[in-house]
Amino acid sequence: MQNLVVNGDRLWESIMELARIGATEKGGVCRLALSDLDRQGRDLFIRWCKEAGCTITIDRVGNIFARRPGKDDSLPPIMTGSHLDSQPTGGRFDGAYGVLAGLEVIRTMNDMEIETDAPVEVVVWTNEEGSRFSPAMMGSGAFIGEFSLDDVMNKKDNVTGEVFGDELKRIGYDGDAWLGDRPIGAYFEAHIEQGPILEDEEKTIGVVIAANGQRWYEVTVTGQEAHAGPTPMPLRKDALVAASRMIQAVHQIGHRYPPYACATVGFIESSPNSRNTIPGSVFFTIDLRHPEDEILTRMNDDVRDECTRIAEDAGCIVDIRDFWEFPATLFDESCVLVVREAAKQSGYSWRDITSGAGHDAVYVARVAPTGMIFIPCEDGISHNETENATPEDCAAGAQVLFMAMLDRSTG
Amino acid sequence: MQNLVVNGDRLWESIMELARIGATEKGGVCRLALSDLDRQGRDLFIRWCKEAGCTITIDRVGNIFARRPGKDDSLPPIMTGSHLDSQPTGGRFDGAYGVLAGLEVIRTMNDMEIETDAPVEVVVWTNEEGSRFSPAMMGSGAFIGEFSLDDVMNKKDNVTGEVFGDELKRIGYDGDAWLGDRPIGAYFEAHIEQGPILEDEEKTIGVVIAANGQRWYEVTVTGQEAHAGPTPMPLRKDALVAASRMIQAVHQIGHRYPPYACATVGFIESSPNSRNTIPGSVFFTIDLRHPEDEILTRMNDDVRDECTRIAEDAGCIVDIRDFWEFPATLFDESCVLVVREAAKQSGYSWRDITSGAGHDAVYVARVAPTGMIFIPCEDGISHNETENATPEDCAAGAQVLFMAMLDRSTG
Repeated sequence: MQNLVVNGDRLWESIMELARIGATEKGGVCRLALSDLDRQGRDLFIRWCKEAGCTITIDRVGNIFARRPGKDDSLPPIMTGSHLDSQPTGGRFDGAYGVLAGLEVIRTMNDMEIETDAPVEVVVWTNEEGSRFSPAMMGSGAFIGEFSLDDVMNKKDNVTGEVFGDELKRIGYDGDAWLGDRPIGAYFEAHIEQGPILEDEEKTIGVVIAANGQRWYEVTVTGQEAHAGPTPMPLRKDALVAASRMIQAVHQIGHRYPPYACATVGFIESSPNSRNTIPGSVFFTIDLRHPEDEILTRMNDDVRDECTRIAEDAGCIVDIRDFWEFPATLFDESCVLVVREAAKQSGYSWRDITSGAGHDAVYVARVAPTGMIFIPCEDGISHNETENATPEDCAAGAQVLFMAMLDRSTG
Repeated sequence: MQNLVVNGDRLWESIMELARIGATEKGGVCRLALSDLDRQGRDLFIRWCKEAGCTITIDRVGNIFARRPGKDDSLPPIMTGSHLDSQPTGGRFDGAYGVLAGLEVIRTMNDMEIETDAPVEVVVWTNEEGSRFSPAMMGSGAFIGEFSLDDVMNKKDNVTGEVFGDELKRIGYDGDAWLGDRPIGAYFEAHIEQGPILEDEEKTIGVVIAANGQRWYEVTVTGQEAHAGPTPMPLRKDALVAASRMIQAVHQIGHRYPPYACATVGFIESSPNSRNTIPGSVFFTIDLRHPEDEILTRMNDDVRDECTRIAEDAGCIVDIRDFWEFPATLFDESCVLVVREAAKQSGYSWRDITSGAGHDAVYVARVAPTGMIFIPCEDGISHNETENATPEDCAAGAQVLFMAMLDRSTG
């Protein structure tokens, strides 16, 4: 491969420096949205952007836009970015890589004294993970109008109950730019694949053509609390026993529509959660994904039918609520093309790929031409402290991002 | 029935007044061990006992002994009591009934100006529930030497990590009486049945002849955290899916040895507990009970075999630790006899019964002649805010307790 103009070492050093903020003992990152550590990550990003000559704008939900001016600053910017928040036991690359690859594009343009026609921007979207405040992709969703400002501001920490708006203010990122008041010429997002396909097929670049549709549910199973000692087995209405059968059913539904379907129970809370009391109620979440909306609908029907049947059989009541959904997304053909051409011209091995994960790009695609660039991650693992990627692959993704953004921002 | 000398109205009013401390909206009680509410309950009990002329002793783990002197105060006391702590969503009778029935015995002796030969004591055992600090029956266990003082003092709140010794001191119940330095002439404990048998058979008094053996375990299942979107179903090592199969297996083992076997998973925590991450590890507890130790051993073997097999099948690792156990208990023949005779003489319907639950009486039985008295509870439900018993049954149990204690403390 040739034509590497981005500085892979500088990019890698920035990724490693950022990863120290919230670093965990096992080599991962815990930098929950709107925590003190999130603030530290944001502060470092802004310092680097200012050093690179960018101007900073922060909007009402805390999304940060770092702008490198173009010859014609009235043109809508060519934007890239991702997020800086992480899962509770997250890795060093998910989100951070896309933000810093964008910064590396700007640094490279500075090194090469490139003047683009349109401005170039790097964005940090607030709370992409949805782990502390649910649902996910909240900053980009608010930006495009999927969530109202009020709705976002009143979201509560899933564990402590702290309020989004209070926490945003506390860390000093309650900006004054209005939401959606920012036309975008095109949007590209670089990201680790978070799956095993590129690594398995030894491809360096994933040209992302589509993203899975997703449906999220909140499920409450109600049985009857009773003493674990003197309550005969046949008389029990054990909500955890019923919920555990439902978790099995959800898992089997994921297996029922291969190879793309995914079905996950990621969060569970049992009440009263006491060792010698039969659980009286259990709350858990379901995450269903598939690239075809029709199959997602079948998975939805299966989940509802089977959970209802299990609850009846166990003498329990189940309440299944739609929590969040978005349909499968096809990315913009011209953006996909410019990414594919950049990969080809750079001599990287590549393949078209679909995204199993949601990304901010999925929301941005509703308001601007959008494309994504994937790079491999070790063993396909992410949302894990052992998440890993190579310096070479990180540089390759940034190079493709640079070429795609240069193409769209110039001439 | 006849011969009712205890004051059922006074007993009922005391139960209702105590139940206001930690009262929940659904009519139950949340009065966790060593909480501020536990302190308030203890303070009220001590005030009532002092009003009844008792002297108070508190030992190093916070057990409270309220003593009514006998003619010969050098005789070991005839003791009764139970506990004032509750489950997180507990009821008004579990524990509190036994303590207040004991207080009613003393009040009745005062009313009738009875002088017993041996002193009479009412005890409040610390942390019987084991819900906040595990295991259960900690105060009585420390009293008889089953747990060391150091071990108890260093126990941590299952959720917050607060330390037992710190919390005991904070609520002002770190007494100075040495553990075990208190011979007991005989011990009786009155309690709601916490099961459906007496109600089903329309019996007022359960003469408790034995208590189930119990084995408690802590289980950790380790899989692999990964992103819920792009991780294909066949590559997952989902710790919660594996744990939910184990929960099914435990439940089936409970059904395998009818009618006495009980098997319960009461506590579960999943990590990282994020909606869009495949769970990497799950911790849960198992509670096995049976009146025959031989069958308990078979249940133990089944649990270990099946959880190990499930873990292997799911690509996970399981660690099953013995956490606590005690063998089945036969109560003292002479104490059982005096309870049975008191029920007969009072004209109450009665039956012999075994206890499915653990009680402080099970530990006390190792150091003193011990008996228990059960009364029915509505629908057999306890460890539940709807736990209920009738004023008539409460009075009947207190009457039998009075007669048994009078018998043992006199001539």
